[in-house]
Amino acid sequence: MSIISLTTDFGDLYPAAMKAVILGINPEVQIVDITHSIRQAGIREGAFALYSLAPYFPAKTVHVAVVDPGVGTSRRALAVKAGAAGSEQFFVGPDNGLLIPAARRLGEMDVYEITNRDLMLKSGISATFHGRDIFAPVGANLSKGVPIEEAGQKVSDFVDLDFENFGVDGPFLMGKVVFADSFGNVITNIPGDAILQFCTFGSKVDVNGRNVPFVQTYGLVGQNEPLALIGSHGFLEIAVNQGSAEMQFGLKGGDPVAIKIL
Amino acid sequence: MSIISLTTDFGDLYPAAMKAVILGINPEVQIVDITHSIRQAGIREGAFALYSLAPYFPAKTVHVAVVDPGVGTSRRALAVKAGAAGSEQFFVGPDNGLLIPAARRLGEMDVYEITNRDLMLKSGISATFHGRDIFAPVGANLSKGVPIEEAGQKVSDFVDLDFENFGVDGPFLMGKVVFADSFGNVITNIPGDAILQFCTFGSKVDVNGRNVPFVQTYGLVGQNEPLALIGSHGFLEIAVNQGSAEMQFGLKGGDPVAIKIL
Amino acid sequence: MSIISLTTDFGDLYPAAMKAVILGINPEVQIVDITHSIRQAGIREGAFALYSLAPYFPAKTVHVAVVDPGVGTSRRALAVKAGAAGSEQFFVGPDNGLLIPAARRLGEMDVYEITNRDLMLKSGISATFHGRDIFAPVGANLSKGVPIEEAGQKVSDFVDLDFENFGVDGPFLMGKVVFADSFGNVITNIPGDAILQFCTFGSKVDVNGRNVPFVQTYGLVGQNEPLALIGSHGFLEIAVNQGSAEMQFGLKGGDPVAIKIL
Repeated sequence: MSIISLTTDFGDLYPAAMKAVILGINPEVQIVDITHSIRQAGIREGAFALYSLAPYFPAKTVHVAVVDPGVGTSRRALAVKAGAAGSEQFFVGPDNGLLIPAARRLGEMDVYEITNRDLMLKSGISATFHGRDIFAPVGANLSKGVPIEEAGQKVSDFVDLDFENFGVDGPFLMGKVVFADSFGNVITNIPGDAILQFCTFGSKVDVNGRNVPFVQTYGLVGQNEPLALIGSHGFLEIAVNQGSAEMQFGLKGGDPVAIKIL
Repeated sequence: MSIISLTTDFGDLYPAAMKAVILGINPEVQIVDITHSIRQAGIREGAFALYSLAPYFPAKTVHVAVVDPGVGTSRRALAVKAGAAGSEQFFVGPDNGLLIPAARRLGEMDVYEITNRDLMLKSGISATFHGRDIFAPVGANLSKGVPIEEAGQKVSDFVDLDFENFGVDGPFLMGKVVFADSFGNVITNIPGDAILQFCTFGSKVDVNGRNVPFVQTYGLVGQNEPLALIGSHGFLEIAVNQGSAEMQFGLKGGDPVAIKIL
Repeated sequence: MSIISLTTDFGDLYPAAMKAVILGINPEVQIVDITHSIRQAGIREGAFALYSLAPYFPAKTVHVAVVDPGVGTSRRALAVKAGAAGSEQFFVGPDNGLLIPAARRLGEMDVYEITNRDLMLKSGISATFHGRDIFAPVGANLSKGVPIEEAGQKVSDFVDLDFENFGVDGPFLMGKVVFADSFGNVITNIPGDAILQFCTFGSKVDVNGRNVPFVQTYGLVGQNEPLALIGSHGFLEIAVNQGSAEMQFGLKGGDPVAIKIL
């Protein structure tokens, strides 16, 4: 039984159209919603959602991701194979960087431009909903074992995207907010490994001028108290126990974060 | 493997009760949520959601839809078979018009009143949750191949519903808002074919007194700029690129829309 | 085909990580979301959601529930088998009371502390996301038929939780709000059986000083009018037809409710 994951900014209703098309092509597939609540046109957020989840899926999973402000314009459609031989996963979506961090995280990748109409919706391609008309049917075909080479030509000039590097500036680790989750936890691009070179659990750090404990989990500080931790995605995370760091710290995607070890 | 879709105004928690009952009867079925966020008692909205999605599902799909302000009163329960012989789909829900536009869109339909207790929940029928106690188990039985004739007698006096006709009034196409989606896109009852008789992509139209470009897709206008387009459902849609037409135009379900070709 | 249900306060994104892990272990399982919208750290709410839904699931269902403010602290992880021999269901989650009302409702129960690392995520256990790293993989293993005895030792000193007793105080039935659903219906801990000993449908009751009809279903009162009824969960429920009793009555989880029969 094969798996297709879905990551979109579609909110309600439209994901069901993608699922209907998928099941028409591959009735046996397991469909998993990663999220449909990415901020509208939030390519970087969507890329992080996919990046953080993909490693937990089994080999052969096909990830269909659609955060696609350029739908119907000249942006290309991509299919990607990534990971070690025998345990590859697949990614299908627009050529705007959305798929790349997740694919790269799995190892080697091959990127194809999707041009083969035989893998798309038979009843026609709309200008506004390639999720339903192109990405869902291509993903369903891949999940049935259609070779990715049938999607189209291999390309190397795809749009790239990364979560940028954090930097060390004197006593500061300088990073950025990549994602605020539905709890209001603020996830940065500073890897857990990096922060552990400078401090140990139980010490204090200064986050944008505010003094917070660096601990292993939420319940080690009082209710509504802030903390820094290494989140389940492996990055430095700013949180508030049973509250919202997004609100308390006023931090959103793209904002700079300066961590000073105390 | 058979498919059951669910369309309700239940929000959270209650859909899971329907799924539990369905899987108890047919453990092999694929369940697809169309939406559970229809406005409370929004029969017309729910009917549109089902109408716009049903054509994308494969033959034999059973659509269970419950927007049911009359639950527990004397309103009847219906099961409908619709579409060409061999590729029929099924619809199960209350007799308040909810199922009819979707069924009619698929072609010929036969409508049955559900009265057979053997197809309902064995442990009893509540007065308030026919989604769990009647519609889910009847749908699950149909998905297993129980003939629809076993549900009850055929009827022809069911409650009808349509999205009403648009009209032409001098230079105006007069229509109505049928649905505002989770992006804030405003979908009218004016078919794409109709508007294409009067203007071509790239021209301008006047929407309730406001001048907007009529184009093929969102990305062809600037961010936060309004546009008119033929949406993925095939109807004239008023949108704002990466914004909400529902808010910018102050339009909601049922509101009149006057389109003037410029 | 086996079933796993999920009940969490995770909101978006994190449930997909649990599903990815589950499908890596048991690709054939049916996953049903009960809810991911439990109020953060709302153990009592989560316990009620599970309690109200579990009886509708088939035998052998594995319920994975994670409302877990103590994640990463010394609280234990539990696996529970409950119900009559041959029709047991299973529960997996933290030792904070979350699982107990649902398990007890099904009959006899055996409670095990989860200590067997072989049933957990192979790639390591984080301090913050036991839903993904412990509860999901243990649940997936149970759904494949791994005997629950392999999880760890049987225990009897687990954290208990009940919805407390209602009381009779002169002309008053004194209870508490257990849950407010997504419609704003307010569900109390007063069983339907209890209230039917004092009054019949069609009579009036006084709810916290306000006079409302006690009827069988929502549509029997006018739009936006309040009512008391026995909800689909079998408890006394305060509702407003097509409106929110949570807002009109200002009632939330834990608040006292005094019902006077008139």
